[in-house]
Amino acid sequence: MQSEHPTQHGSAPGGPVSYLAAVGTALPGDPVDNAALARTLGVNEEWIDVFIGTRTRHFARDLETGEVRWSLADLCAQAAERALAASGLDPHEIDFVVMGTATPDHLMPATVNHVADQLGLDQIPTYQLQSGCAGAVQALQLGHTLVTGGGHTAGLVIGGDVCSKHLDLNRDLSAAAPSDLVNYVLFGDGAGAAVVTSEPRGQRLALRNVLNRFTGLGREPGQIIDWFGLADRHEDRQAVREDYKAIEESVPVMAVEILWELLEDLDWAPEQVDFLLPPQLSGRMTRRIAEELGLPGAVEVSCVADTGNNGNALPFLQLEALLEKIGQGQRALAVAVESSKWIKSGFALEKI
Amino acid sequence: MQSEHPTQHGSAPGGPVSYLAAVGTALPGDPVDNAALARTLGVNEEWIDVFIGTRTRHFARDLETGEVRWSLADLCAQAAERALAASGLDPHEIDFVVMGTATPDHLMPATVNHVADQLGLDQIPTYQLQSGCAGAVQALQLGHTLVTGGGHTAGLVIGGDVCSKHLDLNRDLSAAAPSDLVNYVLFGDGAGAAVVTSEPRGQRLALRNVLNRFTGLGREPGQIIDWFGLADRHEDRQAVREDYKAIEESVPVMAVEILWELLEDLDWAPEQVDFLLPPQLSGRMTRRIAEELGLPGAVEVSCVADTGNNGNALPFLQLEALLEKIGQGQRALAVAVESSKWIKSGFALEKI
Repeated sequence: MQSEHPTQHGSAPGGPVSYLAAVGTALPGDPVDNAALARTLGVNEEWIDVFIGTRTRHFARDLETGEVRWSLADLCAQAAERALAASGLDPHEIDFVVMGTATPDHLMPATVNHVADQLGLDQIPTYQLQSGCAGAVQALQLGHTLVTGGGHTAGLVIGGDVCSKHLDLNRDLSAAAPSDLVNYVLFGDGAGAAVVTSEPRGQRLALRNVLNRFTGLGREPGQIIDWFGLADRHEDRQAVREDYKAIEESVPVMAVEILWELLEDLDWAPEQVDFLLPPQLSGRMTRRIAEELGLPGAVEVSCVADTGNNGNALPFLQLEALLEKIGQGQRALAVAVESSKWIKSGFALEKI
Repeated sequence: MQSEHPTQHGSAPGGPVSYLAAVGTALPGDPVDNAALARTLGVNEEWIDVFIGTRTRHFARDLETGEVRWSLADLCAQAAERALAASGLDPHEIDFVVMGTATPDHLMPATVNHVADQLGLDQIPTYQLQSGCAGAVQALQLGHTLVTGGGHTAGLVIGGDVCSKHLDLNRDLSAAAPSDLVNYVLFGDGAGAAVVTSEPRGQRLALRNVLNRFTGLGREPGQIIDWFGLADRHEDRQAVREDYKAIEESVPVMAVEILWELLEDLDWAPEQVDFLLPPQLSGRMTRRIAEELGLPGAVEVSCVADTGNNGNALPFLQLEALLEKIGQGQRALAVAVESSKWIKSGFALEKI
C-alpha cells in the first residue's frame, strides 16, 4: 500500500498475460422502455430521458405482476453457457468458476454454486465475490491470477446482478423525491461471462493488465445497498442510498486517474488505444465521462443506455460489443469505478 | 473437473507453500449460556444441552434489547488488528485483504472495504467471498494463491459472520418445531483473521495444501439462508432452512473423504498428523465427526461448543487454539464441509 509503484497492485508490464477466449451475456426478457417504466411507476417519462439518459433496461421480475421470472443463477448460467459454446472449449476443460455480484439469490448457498450445477460442472473450486461496479474487474483479476499463477489452464469468470429484488412495485412513487426515484430508473438486471485461459484460445484477446484498488480510506460511501434480515425486515427504511453529488464529482476524476495509470503501467501512448470501455453509470453520466477521458482516437463501447446499470454484468456486455469490432493488433482499455467505497478498477486488452 | 488427480484443484504436493505468520480472533461481548438463551427464547434448556451440545455462543446483538452492538466490520477489523499486531508485520506490508462471510453488513459496499478503512489500509485490492462453512478455507486458498502466484508478499485473510441479523427476538418460539428452533440455538457471531506471507514470518506455520471443491452437482442444498429485499421483505417465510437429515448423513462421510484426500495429496501417513481441526457444526456433531475421522494419534482442536457455529470465523478460532499447542515440526489437518451446496474443503499445516 501507499506504494510508489502502482503497478505493484496490478499486473506488471511485461508481467503475466491471460486470454479471453470468448464472452457471453444474458438479459432477461424484452427491453422495458421509459414510457412503460414511467407508466408503471407513475413518474415522468421525460425526466428519465433527460436526467438519466438511459433508454431501456431489462428486468428479471415482471413489471406488471411482480413475478420473478429469472433468478440470478439462471441469467449467469445462460451467459456462461453462451461464453463456453463460443470459446470452443469443452466444459471438462473448465478448472474453476469466479463470479461477481452485489445481489446474490441467497446468502447461502452462494449463487455461483447453483450456476455450476446448471452448467453441469462439478469437483472444481467456485468463488463468489460480493462486489458492485468493480466486481467484474475483480473477478477477471482473480481469473487472471488463477490461470497465470494458480496452476489452472482455463476458467469461467461471471458477473451479474438482479437489482429488481429491491424494486418495490407496491410503493406509490408519484410524490417520491428524485434521489429516491433514481433507484427505480437507473438499474437493470443481466449477466455476462468470459472464458479465461492461460494460452491464446478462441478470440485470443490478451488481458495485458488488470487494476483493482480500494481507495476509500476515510471516505464516506457513495452508495449503500442494504439487505433485510428476519430481525430488521419490517423497519421502515429504504434499501438503497446514494450520494449522487459525491458520485458525479468523484467518478469522472477517478476514471481519468485509472486510464492514465493503465497507460503508464503498460507504456502505451493514448493514441495507441483503439477502443475505450468507460464506466457505465447511466446514459448521461457515461457520455460525460467518455468525453472527459480524452482519448479522441478511441471508439467508445458503451451499453448502459440500452441495458440500464446492471452492475457486475456491464463490463461483459461491453466486452461482447467490443469483440464484434476489434481487429488483430488492436487495443482496448476498460475503466470501472465502484462508488460504494471508492474502488478504482480497469483492464487492458490486445487482440493477438 | 472430474479429474483423475484431485490434487489438480488443490496445491500439488511439493507445490507452492505459503505461511501463516499470525492469527487473531474477535468474539462479541460475554458468552451467552444455554440457561440465558433458553430464558430469552422461551425454550427448554436441556434440549439445547443434549441435542445441540453447544454450551455458549456470542451475539453482536443484545439479546434483551435487540440493539446491534457490533457490526461484522467491527468484529473483522478487531480480529485483523490482533493478527497484524501478533505477526510483527507493519501494516504497510499488507498487499491485499481477502474476506469470507455469509452475512455481510450490506450488499454494498462489501464489508471488507469498511474493514480496510478501520485498519487504515488503502490503495490495495480487497476481495470479499460470499461463503459459508467453507468460506475461511476459500479465503485462505485465495490468499495462498495471491502470495505464491499473484506477485504479492503478504496479505490479510479474514472470516466472520454475524448470524444474529436473522435472530428475530419478537417471535414466540414456545411452540416452534425443533427444525426451526435449531436456527436460534446453533449459531453465534464472531470473526477471525490470519496474516499470510510468501516467506516464513512470525509463527512460521507452513500452509502445505488447500483443498476447496464444489461437489454439489445435482444435489439439493443442505442449507439455504435468504436475504429479504424491498420487494419481498414482508412475505411470511423463514430465512433459514436446513435439511438436517442430509447434513447428518453427508457431512461425516465427506469429512472422511477430505481427510484422506489431504493425506494422499501430501503423502502423509495418518499417524504423522498431530492435530485435527474437524468441521464445527455443533458441539454434538463435531464430537461424532472427530471420532469417525479416526486419527487416534491426533489431538482434536474444536471451539464450537464455546462459540456456537459462527461460520467463517470458526477455522480461525481453531487456528488460534492450535497455535498455543503446536510445536516445531508438528503437523495439523483442518476439515470443513459446507452443506449449503456441498463444498469439500480443508488444509494442511506444518510448523517449521
